[in-house]
Amino acid sequence: MDVYEALYTTRAMRRVKPDPVPDEVQARILDAAIRAPSGGNQQTWAFMLVDDPEVKAKLGPVYRECIDLLWASFYNTQIEAAQAEPDLPESKQWLAIKKSVDWAAENFESYPLFLFGFAQHDATGGSIFPAIWSAMLAARAEGVGASLTSVMMIKGDEVPGILGVPAEEGWNMACCVPMGYPKGKWGVAKRRPAHEVAYRNQWGQPLGFEIAEPLWPAD
Amino acid sequence: MDVYEALYTTRAMRRVKPDPVPDEVQARILDAAIRAPSGGNQQTWAFMLVDDPEVKAKLGPVYRECIDLLWASFYNTQIEAAQAEPDLPESKQWLAIKKSVDWAAENFESYPLFLFGFAQHDATGGSIFPAIWSAMLAARAEGVGASLTSVMMIKGDEVPGILGVPAEEGWNMACCVPMGYPKGKWGVAKRRPAHEVAYRNQWGQPLGFEIAEPLWPAD
Repeated sequence: MDVYEALYTTRAMRRVKPDPVPDEVQARILDAAIRAPSGGNQQTWAFMLVDDPEVKAKLGPVYRECIDLLWASFYNTQIEAAQAEPDLPESKQWLAIKKSVDWAAENFESYPLFLFGFAQHDATGGSIFPAIWSAMLAARAEGVGASLTSVMMIKGDEVPGILGVPAEEGWNMACCVPMGYPKGKWGVAKRRPAHEVAYRNQWGQPLGFEIAEPLWPAD
Repeated sequence: MDVYEALYTTRAMRRVKPDPVPDEVQARILDAAIRAPSGGNQQTWAFMLVDDPEVKAKLGPVYRECIDLLWASFYNTQIEAAQAEPDLPESKQWLAIKKSVDWAAENFESYPLFLFGFAQHDATGGSIFPAIWSAMLAARAEGVGASLTSVMMIKGDEVPGILGVPAEEGWNMACCVPMGYPKGKWGVAKRRPAHEVAYRNQWGQPLGFEIAEPLWPAD
């Protein structure tokens, strides 16, 4: 797969089938992940694949509690506004995200595979998220859908406790990536264009060019 | 370029030529970056390209101070140990990194382009580093070398001050990515293998397979 196809079409893919992800695919995903950069090349990262139904059964209720808290607290205003005026473009986006995330919560235990990322002494996240994103891009190349969430950090040490993470050694959970073969189709996600979120040489100063339409695929 | 080639060969490329990076290449890099995921698809990110010699002239001395502090404090023990026994494999790696980073410090103003990443209300880094890493992978596909550093955060508000970042609105600098056309060659970076840094279902429990050699390129 072309790198641009992967970069443009690796969108959050939450609705996946329960079919297992073969070991050789898992290996290609992890081997790509560890090529990512880390501060001072220290590789103070750790990864965990979870596919044991017993472990999933412990994680599922925690995930659902976190999602409930997410809607009730962090995104409460946005969701209420979206439900009040469901036809606005931003409302539609919020309601679509909520529906998709709620699907993930209800079907948590049916995901065939989860990838957890951990970092030690990484104040910025810059030494774990490139590796996690590489894993998701490699998964995309393998036809495996994924989505990135840090929502389980709401419940503090609960998930690290279930997974046996040695917090006393400075290991922190960075994220969880549910994975599986998609039910739906890949596509280019809609985003605010680069010239609206990028500046040149000084905050607020124009980038110097505009990008009206996604540059991939090329005509 | 194949996505795996990008994932495996996008290593820190610090020695670059002063040749400018054309606007259309910059556009492809940024347009790929904004396809990355962010929490709740909120896209609370901002990017800045710096190519103005006057701005670079202000940043260079700060970068060099940060690098001096890096060697004198954070990595002091490792560098002293490496200099004491320079023939050990780990020492060689440290001395190679130091030489490369010192080159970057000495030649800071000669980089044709810097990409800065900023995030608003992003506790984990998970809503900016995927986008930054996408930018670096797209740069790789364009033949542009890059390296990722958060070292300028050592000097707190100094760099955001130079760049006019509205810290009062919650915008934080996440990283700086110097870019340019490489003097050297691309290659697969050496890493600890996945089975040494990845577990299955419980911390410390074996992954279930070993990956002795990089899986890319395939035979």
